[in-house]
Amino acid sequence: MSKTIRQALAVPYEFPVVFTRDAFDPENPALADILALAPGGPHRLAAVFDQGLLRAFPDLPERLEAYLRARPGALNVAPPLALPGGEAAKNDLSVFHATLEHIFAARLCRQSFLLVAGGGALLDAAGFAAATAHRGVRLIRMPSTALAQNDAGVGVKNAVNFFGRKNFLGTFAPPFAVLSDFAFLDGLPARERRAGLAEAVKIALIKDRAFFDRLHVQRDALGRFEPDPYEHSIERCAELHLEHIATSGDPFEFGSSRPLDFGHWSAHALEEASGGSLGHGEAVAVGVALDSVYSRLAGLLPEADLERILEVLPALGFTPWHAGLDSLDMEAALEAFREHLGGRLFLSLLTGIGSRVEVNAVDFALMRRASDQLRERFA
Amino acid sequence: MSKTIRQALAVPYEFPVVFTRDAFDPENPALADILALAPGGPHRLAAVFDQGLLRAFPDLPERLEAYLRARPGALNVAPPLALPGGEAAKNDLSVFHATLEHIFAARLCRQSFLLVAGGGALLDAAGFAAATAHRGVRLIRMPSTALAQNDAGVGVKNAVNFFGRKNFLGTFAPPFAVLSDFAFLDGLPARERRAGLAEAVKIALIKDRAFFDRLHVQRDALGRFEPDPYEHSIERCAELHLEHIATSGDPFEFGSSRPLDFGHWSAHALEEASGGSLGHGEAVAVGVALDSVYSRLAGLLPEADLERILEVLPALGFTPWHAGLDSLDMEAALEAFREHLGGRLFLSLLTGIGSRVEVNAVDFALMRRASDQLRERFA
Ligand SMILES: NC(=O)c1ccc[n+]([C@@H]2O[C@H](COP(=O)([O-])OP(=O)(O)OC[C@H]3O[C@@H](n4cnc5c(N)ncnc54)[C@H](O)[C@@H]3O)[C@@H](O)[C@H]2O)c1
Ligand SMILES: NC(=O)c1ccc[n+]([C@@H]2O[C@H](COP(=O)([O-])OP(=O)(O)OC[C@H]3O[C@@H](n4cnc5c(N)ncnc54)[C@H](O)[C@@H]3O)[C@@H](O)[C@H]2O)c1
Ligand SMILES: [Zn+2]
Ligand SMILES: [Zn+2]
Repeated sequence: MSKTIRQALAVPYEFPVVFTRDAFDPENPALADILALAPGGPHRLAAVFDQGLLRAFPDLPERLEAYLRARPGALNVAPPLALPGGEAAKNDLSVFHATLEHIFAARLCRQSFLLVAGGGALLDAAGFAAATAHRGVRLIRMPSTALAQNDAGVGVKNAVNFFGRKNFLGTFAPPFAVLSDFAFLDGLPARERRAGLAEAVKIALIKDRAFFDRLHVQRDALGRFEPDPYEHSIERCAELHLEHIATSGDPFEFGSSRPLDFGHWSAHALEEASGGSLGHGEAVAVGVALDSVYSRLAGLLPEADLERILEVLPALGFTPWHAGLDSLDMEAALEAFREHLGGRLFLSLLTGIGSRVEVNAVDFALMRRASDQLRERFA
Repeated sequence: MSKTIRQALAVPYEFPVVFTRDAFDPENPALADILALAPGGPHRLAAVFDQGLLRAFPDLPERLEAYLRARPGALNVAPPLALPGGEAAKNDLSVFHATLEHIFAARLCRQSFLLVAGGGALLDAAGFAAATAHRGVRLIRMPSTALAQNDAGVGVKNAVNFFGRKNFLGTFAPPFAVLSDFAFLDGLPARERRAGLAEAVKIALIKDRAFFDRLHVQRDALGRFEPDPYEHSIERCAELHLEHIATSGDPFEFGSSRPLDFGHWSAHALEEASGGSLGHGEAVAVGVALDSVYSRLAGLLPEADLERILEVLPALGFTPWHAGLDSLDMEAALEAFREHLGGRLFLSLLTGIGSRVEVNAVDFALMRRASDQLRERFA
């Protein structure tokens, strides 16, 4: 009665994630090497810069232009566009729309490059435009915050907020390349540089004991953002995120994927409840501490491991407790987290440093005790 | 100086393309079988219908609801939404936006289904919403025109028009499933049913001699839309499009892909110049005839093959010439076609029925002669 054709496809993606310093120095081949990866060039290129990044480095657009004159790997076809960064870039469609207009005015085609230099929010909004204009132009991301370099800017997603919902509208769309310039981070306030370290601790705890050991040994140098350990922590954190995406078996999260969100259920709730006074990284540091203590109280995590976690976080400049925990409706926060992921609850707990287990329920009395212990020690 | 991580991913897709009749008959398992493909169900479902389809079959929403009550494979969570079909659905963002609101109001998540029944235009606009809401909900396409069933509705793309440019905004996004109900086609005027046959001739000519032989033998029955040959032509045409996508090595067209657009360079121009009086299928029939005669004049296509092509098209009800060819700026039309594809020109010509060659240039004097010959014979 019916006839069925089974269609099967596999779409391969490959992109470099490059860490460098002074990417627009004409002596630095990194960007030229990226442009040369596209066959049949030189192709057209247009750029978008985060206004926050430009406040710290007003001459970046000129330096990009000079670079492309010195190394003509792309046809630089439009005056660079400056757009607001920060969550405002995602809260309405204006940054998305301005990027579409930029792509249209520069007559980019699917072979052309859109280069976007900015924080995770601008990368998300302009990246959504790059992914949908002509069903996708080649996006070169230049992440300019610590979080964007070690997490937000290296993945395969973009999004804007819509109907008041965070990341309601977006796509899965791997970039053509990611080029992280450590010099960009010099423009950031200490608080923003610190924020990225919380994700490094998070991913080390669930994925890589050796990386955690290194963070622990170097914790005081990291707290001072000494370039060597700091940049290494960014590279390794990015690499672990990339590995997770590549090896998860489900990079576009069609199934009920397990994102790398240790400590994030309470972090999201604290961040929201704080009305912006608590940044994402600061909230993640609290959430990581909370779920680590809970893992200990649940008899999963050895005491000595917990101690090392609670040594690292303060040394990096985080306070591993927040008054918001006292008033947090934990049941509601966990339920919101489950709904966000869809399907059944999966929560990561630690069974050691670098090893985790997924649980489907939480003992809220125990979770309260975990919070109480953190208050007693850190408040 | 720089450190590079090479990220490599492969994203697998698999989806059924099902041809049936009376999909909403509770005795018909096809839709239930599709819903059962999603693990962990029943999941939420919301539907969108093409108003043109509903004019022919006003009770479809009720019948879908009755079907889902009889076979509870999904949680039918919202009153079905009726949206305008035809190119108007793509010319602004209102259909896209209304579909997003429908998804939001029905609280669909990434595991939920959006079922869209309609022509290629509505599938494109609502499909773009399905692909971007939550970065993609599960889209079940029910194509309701001949072109949508054999071409537009079976592929991996969606789009809306933007900045006045056809398909400027969209994504590559394979559906969860395609379910084609032949009974839907009974609602179409003859002209729309005929339109789909032009794509069948097109793809038979470049891909499948046996299919063309069958179209040739059955040409009179096809011209009367006799169900057996007509439905077979739709299935086989869809199958060839699907095969091309799966075996092209580049389903998301990252390289300079060769779409299946034999005869389309002039067809696009004629369709545009006619201001809508010439439909896409009718223009494709002219374009196919033109490039076939040109292939003959260029010494590529045997005379006997050309004759059979020029027998089939009129028997199907097409006029293989159009006055617009006389005033057509062929250079400009071909250049617009090249620009649309990006990069160098690749034009398919026939070297026989079912076999083609790609050329990079056209002899416009010869192309004029091809048009003249068609005028003499068919005007
Ligand atoms: N796509 C993903 O996979 C993914 C993953 C995690 C987070 N995110 C998103 O990332 C966003 C957060 O990104 P973020 O932490 O990079 O912050 P951000 O993008 O919000 O930027 C923070 C501030 O820093 C400014 N800025 C950027 N670079 C600067 C520099 N070098 N010097 C001075 N100021 C600079 C910005 O203008 C902004 O005001 C959120 O919207 C989040 O949803 C996305
Ligand atoms: N995404 C792709 O890969 C792809 C490929 C080819 C074409 N397309 C797009 O498809 C569109 C054309 O699609 P189309 O040819 O299906 O036409 P259409 O979607 O424009 O529909 C034509 C008319 O038929 C009506 N209609 C639909 N089903 C009906 C039914 N069963 N009975 C009565 N009326 C019905 C519609 O309301 C509309 O008025 C174009 O926008 C084109 O760009 C997309
Ligand atoms: Zn985080
Ligand atoms: Zn066509």
